[in-house]
Amino acid sequence: MLKEAIYHRPKNNFAYAYDKETLHILLQTKSKDVKTVELIYGDPYQWENDTWQTETITMERTGSTSHYDYWFVAVKPEFRRMRYGFRLADHEEVCYYTEKGIFASKPLDIANYFCFPYLNPVDVFQSPEWVKDTVWYQIFPERFGNGDPSINPKDTLPWGSTSPTPSNFFGGDFQGVIDHLDYLVDLGISGIYFTPIFKAHSNHKYDTIDYMEIDPQFGDKETFRRMIQECHKRGIRVMLDAVFNHSGFYFQPFQDVLHNQEHSKYRDWFHLWEFPVVTEPKPNYDTFAFVASMPKLNTENPEVREYLLNVARYWVEEFDIDGWRLDVANEVDHAFWRDFRRTVKAVKPDAYILGEIWHDSMPWLQGDQFDAVMNYPFTNGAINFFAKEEIQAKDFQDSIIDVQHMYPKNVNEVAFNLLDSHDTPRILSLANGNHDRVKLLYLFQLSYIGSPCIYYGDEIGMDGGQDPGCRACMEWAIEKQDQEMFHFVKTLISLRNQDPVFGNHAEFRFIHTDDQENYVVYEKYNAEKRIVFVLNNGTNPISLDKDKILSSHSSITEWIIEQSSVQRKSFEENRVEVQGTGFRIFEQEKSS
Amino acid sequence: MLKEAIYHRPKNNFAYAYDKETLHILLQTKSKDVKTVELIYGDPYQWENDTWQTETITMERTGSTSHYDYWFVAVKPEFRRMRYGFRLADHEEVCYYTEKGIFASKPLDIANYFCFPYLNPVDVFQSPEWVKDTVWYQIFPERFGNGDPSINPKDTLPWGSTSPTPSNFFGGDFQGVIDHLDYLVDLGISGIYFTPIFKAHSNHKYDTIDYMEIDPQFGDKETFRRMIQECHKRGIRVMLDAVFNHSGFYFQPFQDVLHNQEHSKYRDWFHLWEFPVVTEPKPNYDTFAFVASMPKLNTENPEVREYLLNVARYWVEEFDIDGWRLDVANEVDHAFWRDFRRTVKAVKPDAYILGEIWHDSMPWLQGDQFDAVMNYPFTNGAINFFAKEEIQAKDFQDSIIDVQHMYPKNVNEVAFNLLDSHDTPRILSLANGNHDRVKLLYLFQLSYIGSPCIYYGDEIGMDGGQDPGCRACMEWAIEKQDQEMFHFVKTLISLRNQDPVFGNHAEFRFIHTDDQENYVVYEKYNAEKRIVFVLNNGTNPISLDKDKILSSHSSITEWIIEQSSVQRKSFEENRVEVQGTGFRIFEQEKSS
Repeated sequence: MLKEAIYHRPKNNFAYAYDKETLHILLQTKSKDVKTVELIYGDPYQWENDTWQTETITMERTGSTSHYDYWFVAVKPEFRRMRYGFRLADHEEVCYYTEKGIFASKPLDIANYFCFPYLNPVDVFQSPEWVKDTVWYQIFPERFGNGDPSINPKDTLPWGSTSPTPSNFFGGDFQGVIDHLDYLVDLGISGIYFTPIFKAHSNHKYDTIDYMEIDPQFGDKETFRRMIQECHKRGIRVMLDAVFNHSGFYFQPFQDVLHNQEHSKYRDWFHLWEFPVVTEPKPNYDTFAFVASMPKLNTENPEVREYLLNVARYWVEEFDIDGWRLDVANEVDHAFWRDFRRTVKAVKPDAYILGEIWHDSMPWLQGDQFDAVMNYPFTNGAINFFAKEEIQAKDFQDSIIDVQHMYPKNVNEVAFNLLDSHDTPRILSLANGNHDRVKLLYLFQLSYIGSPCIYYGDEIGMDGGQDPGCRACMEWAIEKQDQEMFHFVKTLISLRNQDPVFGNHAEFRFIHTDDQENYVVYEKYNAEKRIVFVLNNGTNPISLDKDKILSSHSSITEWIIEQSSVQRKSFEENRVEVQGTGFRIFEQEKSS
Repeated sequence: MLKEAIYHRPKNNFAYAYDKETLHILLQTKSKDVKTVELIYGDPYQWENDTWQTETITMERTGSTSHYDYWFVAVKPEFRRMRYGFRLADHEEVCYYTEKGIFASKPLDIANYFCFPYLNPVDVFQSPEWVKDTVWYQIFPERFGNGDPSINPKDTLPWGSTSPTPSNFFGGDFQGVIDHLDYLVDLGISGIYFTPIFKAHSNHKYDTIDYMEIDPQFGDKETFRRMIQECHKRGIRVMLDAVFNHSGFYFQPFQDVLHNQEHSKYRDWFHLWEFPVVTEPKPNYDTFAFVASMPKLNTENPEVREYLLNVARYWVEEFDIDGWRLDVANEVDHAFWRDFRRTVKAVKPDAYILGEIWHDSMPWLQGDQFDAVMNYPFTNGAINFFAKEEIQAKDFQDSIIDVQHMYPKNVNEVAFNLLDSHDTPRILSLANGNHDRVKLLYLFQLSYIGSPCIYYGDEIGMDGGQDPGCRACMEWAIEKQDQEMFHFVKTLISLRNQDPVFGNHAEFRFIHTDDQENYVVYEKYNAEKRIVFVLNNGTNPISLDKDKILSSHSSITEWIIEQSSVQRKSFEENRVEVQGTGFRIFEQEKSS
């Protein structure tokens, strides 16, 4: 047994409260090294005749990558406190792993064991319930619909008349969104994430001028209110983008600094290195990246904190928005985000707080800061496999198993699973124009755990490279839309919305992957049934032995996705044939 | 190279801000497996010709246990943000370890690398500076000195007339502490930690009746104030014990619950399972352990939070205490402790907040909750080796190296390093009455990193088993005190106070350990000099080759600890002889 690979450390993803009475325990071992793992656990204060009273429960191997196996178990300690250790066995050896090390025989002294001191409900990671069942749609408001030409900004170009550039305008606005809400209802989505809408200079609005005002090119506050109401009427939640890491160049306090220099009353709103503050040839103050027009806000200054928390409160309280997506979230201090959470949740306890973090985000997902992050580790795995074909099936499986085990389960259930965004090329471009690969991406995304997001226009086959290419005007001419893709995505969303096992109320597990033939088979399941997905990522047809992936104990129904519906047919064959870059979906009752 | 043993995950002890400009990075590898490790790092936004600009710095192996090597480096990223990875090499192989896995060649895509997004000063773990230079003395107030017999509790026994029991009283009080402050000044300590002093039922006072009142057996608030002032006059800080996990049985709100049951306005102050609330045969409410007289407080109830935070504020604000030790700290919710820190630090920014946690405590030591915990992992290592002789030299070394690397360096610098307490047998008893072993314990404790604490009476050779044995009356009769031990401890404290390298302003490193001969050699060092400690834990004399442990590049001075002073003598011998359970100390200039 490879001792050096064994790892566990409370809390994070290794030992956490899943809900007010359940602890989840995870152990890492070397891949395929250990045969069985048991959790030995007990209440720290339950003793009889000087002997600590323990119980033993078998842990399940919930994932196996080329490096590690992950072992999982859920327990409900009666008095919400627990000491515990692990009994690991392979064919040759048994050992006991505790906080104090690895032992050949079961340690008697309770002081050796790992400690989950107390499950206090207030510390449980809790995210809004509705997020689990939401399918998001990301709108870049300048490019979704121009519904009110009277408020077009200067030099607005005719809709879709040319390619997007870093500085051109097409006049997208709130009325344009309102006009197309029924399209979104038809698609089946239940949440919209808007990139910034506050008064700003650029077309992307990440350079805020005034956090308390709507950008006039999008409409006024009344139109905004109406848009929210129209969304809510249709069961669609609304999330705004909070750009709190930095302001824009024309943000009044920063302008004040530039004009009044050391005498500015806003001098402590930013991180100024010296006076005079200059923007050329290089900014002598902290910025986002090295962008002089995006001075970093000093969120440690109580005035700034007060100002931004007021912004956070205002749009929730006054306009009833349902969530905040936090731009460049990991460059802002943790202390600020704790205050932010308290502020927002005080006004709307079920608001969704989503951080933009591209990396491992465990420090922000412990219950005191964010509900979720943009799940780029998921994105990378899916894109690198299905779209770019840069990794093999087993590496894809490894990446998804790692994603599954790097965070607590209650975190994964509300992870914001995007495939692309205004910050990346569109999926069709990433897939080199291959529509079948885009379908595989959508099938995987929409059948996976979490809160998936569709980037506007992808669903009708828009393409586009890295920013600004990915920010083209939404294509509203039906004849130019990929209607087949639209109906495919719509069907998957409806499956997700209707079937809790297809959707976000089931477990996910890989059944089989094959590098040679380049396919993956995974299942979603609950106590009653399972849905098995066979995705052929290769261009050649594959033929799989049915018994390898499906159970012979219950009958099998195949789901065949047609234009806008799903045909369910009994499946009687012995082999599962899948065409190149195709897929098949099967449903079975769970044999007990 | 054993890939499965390689581990790093920001933040915690692996990647953290040491101060406002310095990041510390730690990597774990299999023991003695990797020859060199380099950190590859750069600012995420510094690119030239589409190439990310990185630098490379060699990491130092700061510890090697039987399982793992630890590699460390400090860097000061110019713009306080960093992406980074590791280049590991052994004789056969080079590999690159990043967030996205292990690669044979250096990954070009920055997205692969680990991320330390931004060093925000407010998130830096910051503890009071004074703690680094404090030597603590723990007083159990009922047993330190009876200075005012007029306030003796009922049935007070003559001082030291009999053994301590769970329920007898000897009348220790604040006047008794004041009377003996000059003794403590003579000993050289600079902080007193008092176990609880608030109105309570028992002799240990962990069963609080009133958090806003001094227990009348100790004195009144004016005497308490005078005691604090007398301590402060002598440069001694004062830390009180906050028992916030549970109240005592006679705490008025709990009494109200027992009397008024479901009609009590305090029914939400506790975790009651049902009505009527009963204490017999078993409590039907949450308690500390299963002790009916210690009902767990509901710190999630805003009224309770308010009440306890007010207590925390009151004693700091009104009486100028310098710290709080938090009883059963890990069973109280994290959210409460964050509020507690904010409250206490608002009144006294350099107050010390010390949690009682016997286990790995990383989740409480991230800057938002505690300044330190009672460092039981340190205690266990030292006691098991020097006192109980239960582990070998190498296991002791491993345990201390693990302690060193399980927390950030700025956390270790203020760790509360105790050897025993009112909750354990006394060190002399743990060492089976062997005074030499107690001396080795003190030498190790007082030359190690952190904030050491002496349990009252140990320094004059008191013994005593597990509670209540360890809570005997302080022995004030000089002829019954172990004066040699007193002078030994006093001398070590004065060395610690006078010499920054002996004390807490230097690095610690093991030089050599030997299981066969049962000794350890370690050094403390800064840029200028080193102090080498040879501790023979065996009963046989040892003779070590001088060149194995001391440098030949500079002259060597031996420190010989005599009754109350240190003789410094040139050391010219070729071998270092150490008698059984003896030690020797050498000082050398650092050869450049």
